[in-house]
Amino acid sequence: MTKTIQEVIDLIIAEIPNAPLEDSVDTFKCGDPGQEVSGIVTTFTATLDVLRRAVELDANLIITHEPTFYDHRDNTDWLDDDPVYAAKRAFIEKHQLTIWRFHDYWHMHEPDGIQVGVEKVLGWEQYEHTDNRYIIHIPPTTVGDLVDHLKQKFGTSTMRVIGDLAMPCQRIGMLLGAIGGTNQIKAFHLANLDVALCGETTEWQTGEYIRDAIAADQKKALIILGHATSEEAGMHYLVEWLQPKVPDIQITFIPVGDPIAVV
Amino acid sequence: MTKTIQEVIDLIIAEIPNAPLEDSVDTFKCGDPGQEVSGIVTTFTATLDVLRRAVELDANLIITHEPTFYDHRDNTDWLDDDPVYAAKRAFIEKHQLTIWRFHDYWHMHEPDGIQVGVEKVLGWEQYEHTDNRYIIHIPPTTVGDLVDHLKQKFGTSTMRVIGDLAMPCQRIGMLLGAIGGTNQIKAFHLANLDVALCGETTEWQTGEYIRDAIAADQKKALIILGHATSEEAGMHYLVEWLQPKVPDIQITFIPVGDPIAVV
Repeated sequence: MTKTIQEVIDLIIAEIPNAPLEDSVDTFKCGDPGQEVSGIVTTFTATLDVLRRAVELDANLIITHEPTFYDHRDNTDWLDDDPVYAAKRAFIEKHQLTIWRFHDYWHMHEPDGIQVGVEKVLGWEQYEHTDNRYIIHIPPTTVGDLVDHLKQKFGTSTMRVIGDLAMPCQRIGMLLGAIGGTNQIKAFHLANLDVALCGETTEWQTGEYIRDAIAADQKKALIILGHATSEEAGMHYLVEWLQPKVPDIQITFIPVGDPIAVV
Repeated sequence: MTKTIQEVIDLIIAEIPNAPLEDSVDTFKCGDPGQEVSGIVTTFTATLDVLRRAVELDANLIITHEPTFYDHRDNTDWLDDDPVYAAKRAFIEKHQLTIWRFHDYWHMHEPDGIQVGVEKVLGWEQYEHTDNRYIIHIPPTTVGDLVDHLKQKFGTSTMRVIGDLAMPCQRIGMLLGAIGGTNQIKAFHLANLDVALCGETTEWQTGEYIRDAIAADQKKALIILGHATSEEAGMHYLVEWLQPKVPDIQITFIPVGDPIAVV
């Protein structure tokens, strides 16, 4: 049975507690939601390369976690004569792609869809979740062994760390994405974290806070995964979550990986 | 001839065009500026370790580029019961240290004191500065050779890059520090940069913009130095700039380096 793009999105939003919000970045960024859906792509960011793959797959609905046009609200006024924006916009219009952002609502899902996907990759689903879902108690380990585990599970060869690799740790904050330096510092203190995993950090805030904590002999460490690495497993998990609701529609996760190379 | 801390700071501000500003983060963060200066430390960030070194050097004036208390305006209301803040504050009070931030005014100096220090390290002072001081034309090279030069001059073994190492480049944006993703993207477009050097970036903005630029066959690259690496040479240069104005006072630069290790 065919469905329109809008019908697919309505199915998703119906599963989210307290949705729809009056103000959310989870909106259509382009395209016509009234058209019949030909296929769905899920991804961390709808990059130009992802859009090309979507066209190859004959998928006209791209569900992205992050913005399409480099701005939290996808405001494009400031990009009017930008050649990168122009190239991406032209490709979208030529292929009549519809892009919908699934950010606020996926985090509002019970439990947070991004975190579920990341925990599946890490094999952490069975560990104790405290009364705050973002704080997990893992079996006692060290920062160094934790980093090795993360590298293996995420398939990355390097990781960025502030802290002592020999430090014991157990209480982990899942500060995935980019929640900001102030929020990261508050989480370390208020949740009494041993280690936080984050996507992006703010070096002059959290970086210096952790450096001072260590100098004051307070046992803290920050592991910086990279934004895409810290969240894209949640958009992979979205396929598993969404497919039973639309069994006739092909859904493909397209990974983007970290844009930054360590050389 | 002895001087008070306030007299030293007044000497500095007198050299800055359009200073003092009505609203600036360049204020005293703690201590008594009326006391006689015993010695000066300059640094990128007044970390707890830097403060300990300052005490060893009998320097009671620390001039820092970045905040002391993890907040742009060094507002500490949100840190009231934080143990890292408490330890740092206790050390400062015990040793009666005075910390003054030299951020806005050092960038406003003609030419920008931070950039002068960085260019000295890189050997770039003689290259053509365009009508925008933050855009430099270096001799034609490739991104890979540029990265090698930066590693050698900054003494770092790794560097984070978005882009093709074989890409030719010449027009470089000196986007030192953390100017924000939107400003970085505007600079790439409006200044038609080949490469930007930055301290920190915003992966979901600039990272995705550069990734899309490359996918659209527009030749762009971003080199992420780390915030401290991108600016601390400017606080080293401050010693050379300030010493002739206060010949009787010992001034010591204390490097902090990047808090983040790549493991």
